Amino acid sequence: MAHNKSHATFGRLLLTGAAGGLGQQLRPRLAKYARHVRLSDIADLAPASGPHEELFQTRLEDSQAMLALLEGVDAVIHLGGISVERPFDEILQANIVGVYNLYEAVRRQGVRRVVFASSNHVTGFYRQDEVIDTKAPPRPDGLYGVSKAFGENLAQFYYDRYGVETVSIRIGSSFPVPRDARMLATWLSYDDLERLVARALLAPVVGHTVIYGVSANTVKWWDNRHAAHLGYVAQDCSEPFREEVMAQQVPLDPQDPASYAQGGAFVRAGPFE
Amino acid sequence: MAHNKSHATFGRLLLTGAAGGLGQQLRPRLAKYARHVRLSDIADLAPASGPHEELFQTRLEDSQAMLALLEGVDAVIHLGGISVERPFDEILQANIVGVYNLYEAVRRQGVRRVVFASSNHVTGFYRQDEVIDTKAPPRPDGLYGVSKAFGENLAQFYYDRYGVETVSIRIGSSFPVPRDARMLATWLSYDDLERLVARALLAPVVGHTVIYGVSANTVKWWDNRHAAHLGYVAQDCSEPFREEVMAQQVPLDPQDPASYAQGGAFVRAGPFE
Amino acid sequence: MAHNKSHATFGRLLLTGAAGGLGQQLRPRLAKYARHVRLSDIADLAPASGPHEELFQTRLEDSQAMLALLEGVDAVIHLGGISVERPFDEILQANIVGVYNLYEAVRRQGVRRVVFASSNHVTGFYRQDEVIDTKAPPRPDGLYGVSKAFGENLAQFYYDRYGVETVSIRIGSSFPVPRDARMLATWLSYDDLERLVARALLAPVVGHTVIYGVSANTVKWWDNRHAAHLGYVAQDCSEPFREEVMAQQVPLDPQDPASYAQGGAFVRAGPFE
Amino acid sequence: MAHNKSHATFGRLLLTGAAGGLGQQLRPRLAKYARHVRLSDIADLAPASGPHEELFQTRLEDSQAMLALLEGVDAVIHLGGISVERPFDEILQANIVGVYNLYEAVRRQGVRRVVFASSNHVTGFYRQDEVIDTKAPPRPDGLYGVSKAFGENLAQFYYDRYGVETVSIRIGSSFPVPRDARMLATWLSYDDLERLVARALLAPVVGHTVIYGVSANTVKWWDNRHAAHLGYVAQDCSEPFREEVMAQQVPLDPQDPASYAQGGAFVRAGPFE
Amino acid sequence: MAHNKSHATFGRLLLTGAAGGLGQQLRPRLAKYARHVRLSDIADLAPASGPHEELFQTRLEDSQAMLALLEGVDAVIHLGGISVERPFDEILQANIVGVYNLYEAVRRQGVRRVVFASSNHVTGFYRQDEVIDTKAPPRPDGLYGVSKAFGENLAQFYYDRYGVETVSIRIGSSFPVPRDARMLATWLSYDDLERLVARALLAPVVGHTVIYGVSANTVKWWDNRHAAHLGYVAQDCSEPFREEVMAQQVPLDPQDPASYAQGGAFVRAGPFE
Amino acid sequence: MAHNKSHATFGRLLLTGAAGGLGQQLRPRLAKYARHVRLSDIADLAPASGPHEELFQTRLEDSQAMLALLEGVDAVIHLGGISVERPFDEILQANIVGVYNLYEAVRRQGVRRVVFASSNHVTGFYRQDEVIDTKAPPRPDGLYGVSKAFGENLAQFYYDRYGVETVSIRIGSSFPVPRDARMLATWLSYDDLERLVARALLAPVVGHTVIYGVSANTVKWWDNRHAAHLGYVAQDCSEPFREEVMAQQVPLDPQDPASYAQGGAFVRAGPFE
Repeated sequence: MAHNKSHATFGRLLLTGAAGGLGQQLRPRLAKYARHVRLSDIADLAPASGPHEELFQTRLEDSQAMLALLEGVDAVIHLGGISVERPFDEILQANIVGVYNLYEAVRRQGVRRVVFASSNHVTGFYRQDEVIDTKAPPRPDGLYGVSKAFGENLAQFYYDRYGVETVSIRIGSSFPVPRDARMLATWLSYDDLERLVARALLAPVVGHTVIYGVSANTVKWWDNRHAAHLGYVAQDCSEPFREEVMAQQVPLDPQDPASYAQGGAFVRAGPFE
Repeated sequence: MAHNKSHATFGRLLLTGAAGGLGQQLRPRLAKYARHVRLSDIADLAPASGPHEELFQTRLEDSQAMLALLEGVDAVIHLGGISVERPFDEILQANIVGVYNLYEAVRRQGVRRVVFASSNHVTGFYRQDEVIDTKAPPRPDGLYGVSKAFGENLAQFYYDRYGVETVSIRIGSSFPVPRDARMLATWLSYDDLERLVARALLAPVVGHTVIYGVSANTVKWWDNRHAAHLGYVAQDCSEPFREEVMAQQVPLDPQDPASYAQGGAFVRAGPFE
Repeated sequence: MAHNKSHATFGRLLLTGAAGGLGQQLRPRLAKYARHVRLSDIADLAPASGPHEELFQTRLEDSQAMLALLEGVDAVIHLGGISVERPFDEILQANIVGVYNLYEAVRRQGVRRVVFASSNHVTGFYRQDEVIDTKAPPRPDGLYGVSKAFGENLAQFYYDRYGVETVSIRIGSSFPVPRDARMLATWLSYDDLERLVARALLAPVVGHTVIYGVSANTVKWWDNRHAAHLGYVAQDCSEPFREEVMAQQVPLDPQDPASYAQGGAFVRAGPFE
Repeated sequence: MAHNKSHATFGRLLLTGAAGGLGQQLRPRLAKYARHVRLSDIADLAPASGPHEELFQTRLEDSQAMLALLEGVDAVIHLGGISVERPFDEILQANIVGVYNLYEAVRRQGVRRVVFASSNHVTGFYRQDEVIDTKAPPRPDGLYGVSKAFGENLAQFYYDRYGVETVSIRIGSSFPVPRDARMLATWLSYDDLERLVARALLAPVVGHTVIYGVSANTVKWWDNRHAAHLGYVAQDCSEPFREEVMAQQVPLDPQDPASYAQGGAFVRAGPFE
Repeated sequence: MAHNKSHATFGRLLLTGAAGGLGQQLRPRLAKYARHVRLSDIADLAPASGPHEELFQTRLEDSQAMLALLEGVDAVIHLGGISVERPFDEILQANIVGVYNLYEAVRRQGVRRVVFASSNHVTGFYRQDEVIDTKAPPRPDGLYGVSKAFGENLAQFYYDRYGVETVSIRIGSSFPVPRDARMLATWLSYDDLERLVARALLAPVVGHTVIYGVSANTVKWWDNRHAAHLGYVAQDCSEPFREEVMAQQVPLDPQDPASYAQGGAFVRAGPFE
Repeated sequence: MAHNKSHATFGRLLLTGAAGGLGQQLRPRLAKYARHVRLSDIADLAPASGPHEELFQTRLEDSQAMLALLEGVDAVIHLGGISVERPFDEILQANIVGVYNLYEAVRRQGVRRVVFASSNHVTGFYRQDEVIDTKAPPRPDGLYGVSKAFGENLAQFYYDRYGVETVSIRIGSSFPVPRDARMLATWLSYDDLERLVARALLAPVVGHTVIYGVSANTVKWWDNRHAAHLGYVAQDCSEPFREEVMAQQVPLDPQDPASYAQGGAFVRAGPFE
């Protein structure tokens, strides 16, 4: 893969969770933003696509390893951790201990910018006929959502206290195409994901900014007005998929929170006993 | 007229006020959304355009007839009633008794969705240099506007109490083209009207949602942010008509509420004594 | 009863619904605000307590009689109509036709101020753990609540169009003492009712002001900040009755809207079929 | 100590953190609200003051022990955990794992109400010249504050998902008397603490309500309007202590966040390395 | 007059406009807050009441004299300038050039706190049935009001740029007793004026805070919630004067802005041609 | 230059500051809106391009000359005055005395509409990660910004008192192309400037409307929702210039207000001593 170093803005970008679904999508796209792209996951990573890639197998729970991972890093895109509802112990290690270790390493290594993969499940218990903005109080739809709210609050603290800047992206549903009726509202295309990550990395002043990660779908539950300074302009839209999606949609029970809550099926995941 | 049953979403849609100005526009457009389109008015209706159309001559004031009209209906588009300022007795029967009869019939027949033709005249006493959203307190500009607010409140009650969902569309000025300076802001093209009605029918979760029915005009008095979940995207715009409209516009007296209030001439209609 | 004309502010006050529960309470208290107190009801009124009282038996539905009733009146306190959930026909006549007749008579007779007995049931479907203000969108808990919202909207229109000023008092629960747990929040003592009516009559500029009618109870669901210009300061409080009330309170089912909605049992009254 | 069972509202109340500063204050005051008062701490508890007291030495991190602790409990006042800035590992165990264990035990044992001792340090990075309400986005001033925000979000989730009601009290500074200039704003007397806990326990409908725990001090940073339904009325005030406090106040550096942030010295505690 | 130096908080306070109506009231009251009280006016000042008073005759328009006046000053109460509607040239010199000279001198002399006598006439064109807070956009009722808004904006700038803190007090009507119906809402007793000035001087963190200066009148047009951190608690109330005031009140014309605007007669003062 | 009188809306438009940077841009563009274009500046103006142009050399500080200048004018675009940070004396004369003279002349000559060139520096101390609307309290970044806030407040007063309508355009950075990173957010192309001025002149009802003057840049700090009634739709965008601009951008110090404040370098201009 050709790597055009001449336009790279960052010396070294770190991508955690690089072996996951979104990590695999973002990995090749980051080359144009940095001379060195450091990749980290606990799962196996595909071999480096060129000399600009640096591969690390680091557990988020390992604070010393995290400190090493962040060395020499200019900015980090933190996709690492668990991205679905799971038993608390798993969430605790990956998404709470892990994100703390990340921020401590960021602070100690002098990294100035974090792009944090938060989730729409921070506010999943709002209804689908409510339109909320990023200052609406959290209504998480599970332990996963609670853990992402924890990450956002930690990001706010590290900014207020230590000046570390973060963009918390409350990712909607990032898949190749929308899969069901709910995703007509929540879909984030991979190209729009890249656009948003790029803006989050490059905007000159962000403090701690929260933004919903969603394409330019016509059905909107989320109002990103407070994040307009990022300059994110989605260019994809779920609408072309509507007919196909609706043809396959199973009927929804209007009394079921999974039908009317923004979080969809997440609102009835667990508990794991 | 060809009627493609294969894509129809609804078994039976009811359109009240089908003989009126907007009713005539919507009537042929509804065929693609339902296998059966029931049409009702007190005035004569044009003959059925095909076997999918069912014609009823029903008075809104007749509660028993309304109960029969709603039988077997999946969703109703309620354009029926009076749509201009008139003496109170007329408004009372058509827009107050009539809308109550409609909702009672809806409730008793188990209809789950209503699209209610409300009006911008619910808020006609706001000024043309104010931009309001759908939560601004009503400022009706006449008895007609008061009656439409009554309908909206009734819709809210039937949702909170009985789970009947409604989209109340505060229709601007729906004509083939904008007719005067005010309509450059308030114009709703017939195509956009259909788009909005379709979204109101098809959006999976609406509770009771209020939305202004207006095209994508550049001059905007109404902010539909709270209804973004409907996914309505207007595609027409009054701007191409500006030059012609302004050339014919009679001068406005800046001291006259009819010049500066959003409701225009409605604010000085009546009283009828 | 002695009637001190020297301090009376108004020449003639009209009290409608004077034979009702609150009407009987207010009747003797009004003497100090006006030289003449006109009393109206469809039920029998107690004989005049002095020459300052004028007794009328007027049906709100009778527009001509209403016009005569308002003649020579400076301000009106409109308690007339139905104050509980009832079949629609009754509500329609008393609270919709009746309030229209009132305002038309007010307009034609040049009366400048109305104190309108609205109701907390205009917003009865809000929850008891929500604190709302007077600009929150209506969520009526029944046809009665819908009819009171109609009256408020009509009042707004008559102010915007004709300059008739109104204070709409959303009365809580006005009884000698609070009767159940809900009334610890909603109670309005008779003395506070008088204080509020007096402010509503005497405040120099009110336009159309909406205010919740409630004593200085410690549990508050309603925020009257937008009506602070009235200068109403409640002096009674439900708290001294708490122990006795709670000792007799039947257990509440937390799943029952009648337990958690602000409107209490009203939210499940009706329908009357 | 005399224990008047006749007025007790609850069968069994649980107080965690009963050996701590506030726990010792609340312990004897709870007797009048419940027939049985269960007390828990990891530290030694003073001997039971009567047969109504049940003593447990339970670690919050021990999920099985927590499950046992909650058995037969009607409502719980959760003061347990760490209440100052500490290294993350300690915060993690006591305030994150601990509060999760609490809510899981609450859910599984069918406890319906939690009073959660949150903290003003959830919003400690707001300035002392800002007045915030309980819907303002969190700005925690340390890991402790972040952990309390975690608890609030968990409480919200357990309400939305499982119907467990919580009042999260963001306690200011609860000491016998205010100790410095900042506490003139943040002081919560022990008597007012009891008043607030009582309201939090007894209010009939709370969902998840957040309230700042503060006395009726004249200097106010926190606006509890959204919690007015609790009926909490503080009766103590820091003002009588002003002169003495200010005489001993060391000069503040206006450039130091510890001087101008609401969290005071917390904003520069840690990191612990 | 006895001067208790032992409790004085400030070394030297400056009072400008000390010969004016409010200046004369505040002058003797300041002794208890400072060891030295510097007094300034262009009019003659009464002789010093003791060695703690320093008398200056300084024109606000004289920038060099202002620089000298501020030397050695810890905090300044700026009552100087014009306090009624006057021709623009007078307003310009006293209230625009003058307040600029003041802030420049404050900046250059290192004074850290200003108490600025602003005016309710900054927002005098709001109606008397509107309740506004200190963030409502200005609607000045004359050149005087415009000049006071200028002073507030300058204060904001000197805080944001140079860290000079200001409390801008939008004084209502500060007289011995309320003089007319409007002042029942706007009255600020001299004792409450002192209380407010003291809080403005002594509050530890104020940035630039705007507050309406008004007693605890029952009729309220102004909501000081954003200034609650000052801890100002008014103790006087206009209500005891109501009867006497209303007995002498001339009838108001409801169509006259001077009757319904908050600024009263100011809204029709001038223009001076 | 050809001048098409047939479509001109205004009889006579006045452009002040016609010799300045923006004045030179607007001058030739105004011909299509008016039969006569009056131009004024203290600097030399280029010769009239045709008989429709009238040239005046008028000092804003000269009230008599200003009165003459406004004679026969239908609407005025006021670009005159100083548009950068300068010593107070200069600002005072041009932007405070000058704008007062303008409005007095407008009032006395019966001109009904003013387009006032205000500035984004009225709110320059907000941060670049904040998105503000036109009702956010001013935070001027210098004396220039304070003077523009003065002009806006004066405009509000002349509307409330005398019915003179104004659109205050808070101009961003109007240059041929964006020059630095900040201008990617603040750039206003000359074509969009004309579009906005045209809307400000032609909108039928504006009262006093404030709007930020900015192109359709993707990075947005300013929310013009309250001015949507003007119908301004920007058509240019800074994004095509991003790469070139960023390649030349000098590194920013994140601790420097000039880097993170919206006003950019203005926030550290002056003082001039």
